[in-house]
Amino acid sequence: MSVTAAQGFRAAGVRAGLKASGKPDLALVVNDGPLDVAAGVFTTNRVVAAPVVWSREVIGGQDQGGEPGSARAVVLNSGSANACTGLQGAQDARLTAQEVGRLLGAAPDEVLVCSTGVIGTPLDMPRLLDGARSAAETLAAGAQAGHDAAVAIMTTDTVPKEDTVVRDGWTVGGMIKGVGMLAPGLATMLAVLTTDAQVDAAGAQRALEAATARTVNRINSDGCMSTNDTVVLLASGASGASPDQAELEEALTELLGMLGRRLVADAEGATHDIAVTVTGAVSEAAAEAAARTVSASNLLKCAVAGNDPNWGRVLSQLGTVPEEVCPLDPDKVDVTINGVTIFRHGALGEDRSKVDMTPRETRIDIALWAGSAEATVWTNDLTHGYVTINAEYTT
Amino acid sequence: MSVTAAQGFRAAGVRAGLKASGKPDLALVVNDGPLDVAAGVFTTNRVVAAPVVWSREVIGGQDQGGEPGSARAVVLNSGSANACTGLQGAQDARLTAQEVGRLLGAAPDEVLVCSTGVIGTPLDMPRLLDGARSAAETLAAGAQAGHDAAVAIMTTDTVPKEDTVVRDGWTVGGMIKGVGMLAPGLATMLAVLTTDAQVDAAGAQRALEAATARTVNRINSDGCMSTNDTVVLLASGASGASPDQAELEEALTELLGMLGRRLVADAEGATHDIAVTVTGAVSEAAAEAAARTVSASNLLKCAVAGNDPNWGRVLSQLGTVPEEVCPLDPDKVDVTINGVTIFRHGALGEDRSKVDMTPRETRIDIALWAGSAEATVWTNDLTHGYVTINAEYTT
Repeated sequence: MSVTAAQGFRAAGVRAGLKASGKPDLALVVNDGPLDVAAGVFTTNRVVAAPVVWSREVIGGQDQGGEPGSARAVVLNSGSANACTGLQGAQDARLTAQEVGRLLGAAPDEVLVCSTGVIGTPLDMPRLLDGARSAAETLAAGAQAGHDAAVAIMTTDTVPKEDTVVRDGWTVGGMIKGVGMLAPGLATMLAVLTTDAQVDAAGAQRALEAATARTVNRINSDGCMSTNDTVVLLASGASGASPDQAELEEALTELLGMLGRRLVADAEGATHDIAVTVTGAVSEAAAEAAARTVSASNLLKCAVAGNDPNWGRVLSQLGTVPEEVCPLDPDKVDVTINGVTIFRHGALGEDRSKVDMTPRETRIDIALWAGSAEATVWTNDLTHGYVTINAEYTT
Repeated sequence: MSVTAAQGFRAAGVRAGLKASGKPDLALVVNDGPLDVAAGVFTTNRVVAAPVVWSREVIGGQDQGGEPGSARAVVLNSGSANACTGLQGAQDARLTAQEVGRLLGAAPDEVLVCSTGVIGTPLDMPRLLDGARSAAETLAAGAQAGHDAAVAIMTTDTVPKEDTVVRDGWTVGGMIKGVGMLAPGLATMLAVLTTDAQVDAAGAQRALEAATARTVNRINSDGCMSTNDTVVLLASGASGASPDQAELEEALTELLGMLGRRLVADAEGATHDIAVTVTGAVSEAAAEAAARTVSASNLLKCAVAGNDPNWGRVLSQLGTVPEEVCPLDPDKVDVTINGVTIFRHGALGEDRSKVDMTPRETRIDIALWAGSAEATVWTNDLTHGYVTINAEYTT
């Protein structure tokens, strides 16, 4: 179950003909209310795709005359990212919202637009608009419709990615796509979350930002940030339940954590999912910065691919984090890989032969003994498969 | 010609038995004066190897009672990095300097120590000291001795790397090792430069720092920084020539540029050397930051490996540079690959089929049109060979 798990939502996934493969490539998610609350978190890349610019303005209520924090629907296409497409791209995003709005009896500025796929080629608008009409006709509640939508947003994903969190009287569900951060020209993490909880726009935005920061923003598959990354949340209020802010944030964090874990598990070419956890830091920000830096090491990622518990690469990468960002004393650091502390207080610990590197999930725990904060960043190993996907596939 | 090209220097390279392969693994470079000026630039990694700590103190004149900016010799070993070796490692670095000093009739704090190789295993001191004695016995002037030293510092380098710059009446020569930043556990860029120019310690240090910043510090093979990186300069004054500061800096920059180019050409698994040049930036620092960010993209590096002139990956990576670091307007950017401007002013330019990606040297030029400063950062493509070297070779 995904975007249709919560009450008040319908979805569809259809073939618009944007993908050369002929696979489904257009999804529509509609909020039937009674509320039309919407929140969004977008890429911080300065090169942003046209649909991101459009959707950011819809959520922000800028320049559209619309209500901030509200939307009735999200239309998503795969096959083309509509990025680096100039004025034409901006017009196409707006035209897409206009047509979907017309089909649903909504204003253009009540429609969010997301695109993913090849960069730099214009959208095939006749096909996209035909697809939107077909999606509007097939909108339905229920698990199958949500699943169809999750399938239609896939690019090089090998499986659709959906999850649901059920609370006392209310539900959040969602779908996500992305494999690593980018395939060649094919880009982007997109996620659509829906809830039937009664929430206001400001609370929804705060909760979504907090949940994103601790989940999908802590996945660092290959260090590359897309031009199109988007996470949106729609709230219908249809359950009548009113969770407090903490409950909403907690449920969204759990859902996005599960969805993010599915991203990692499907990353390009990966044979290991790697959780880099830094404990004993002076602050959560310091722990996150250190974990993010270690997770970005190509050398470490290659070592894990080779089932090598290479603590030297953990340490040499950790040492590149500036002191002002994460205070640490290298002579106090412990490194534990899959439960075996092979480096302890700046010197050799347990024998490295005790580390079992065969499980897909690899846990690298770094204890700084400088404070009490911690953070985990997920990454993948760097394999021949990654190189093949990203070198031999030519845009 | 390398470290023995300038007058006043002798060198040696011998087999100490530190490498399992039995190849040469200990080098010695001696400055016979009349000057004993020394300058050094070291890794900024916070996890630093014992020999770096020692040599930094020798150059700085700290804790040793010695003269800052002076040294009589450099002893270098491959086969073991003496990193993450705790108190024992510090004692071994000091003991090495003591023995070499004794052999040369110099104080311990006149001897710089460099190590490269496996991290986390203690040096085999009996073999290392025997090797040092053997090196001291075979010290000689001339090209062969310099070449022997360059061979003895190789780790996974496939060729020794030497170069010389001759000026009017004075010379600078040098050797370097390193392939990418690290092989698995085998680490490090080491460089030893020598000159017979008459220079003072402060001028030598300033010139070396400036030359390093514009050359080897702008190589970003795999984004990984070693615990042992060291560049040292010894000046004998034996030529009697006294270049001014600008002339010295210019010669060192030329020499380190050539040596750095040799590093790139021998990087692990690489099939393309990539020069990322950012022009039209508001400052050189901004240009360097942008070029460094683009050069770090695994996706771009894989694309180049696949002979794919993927401007989308250049742009999406460029967009991750913060505005305060490098102001730019994405709609004004041009991207030129091997001379063909395939992206111009934020839109498609020349046809990408015109780009010839077959040469090993790949030029990616990014024009920001925001100012007049520029910088080039060198990197390599990311290939199956890199993954093989760093995954299948187990520490």
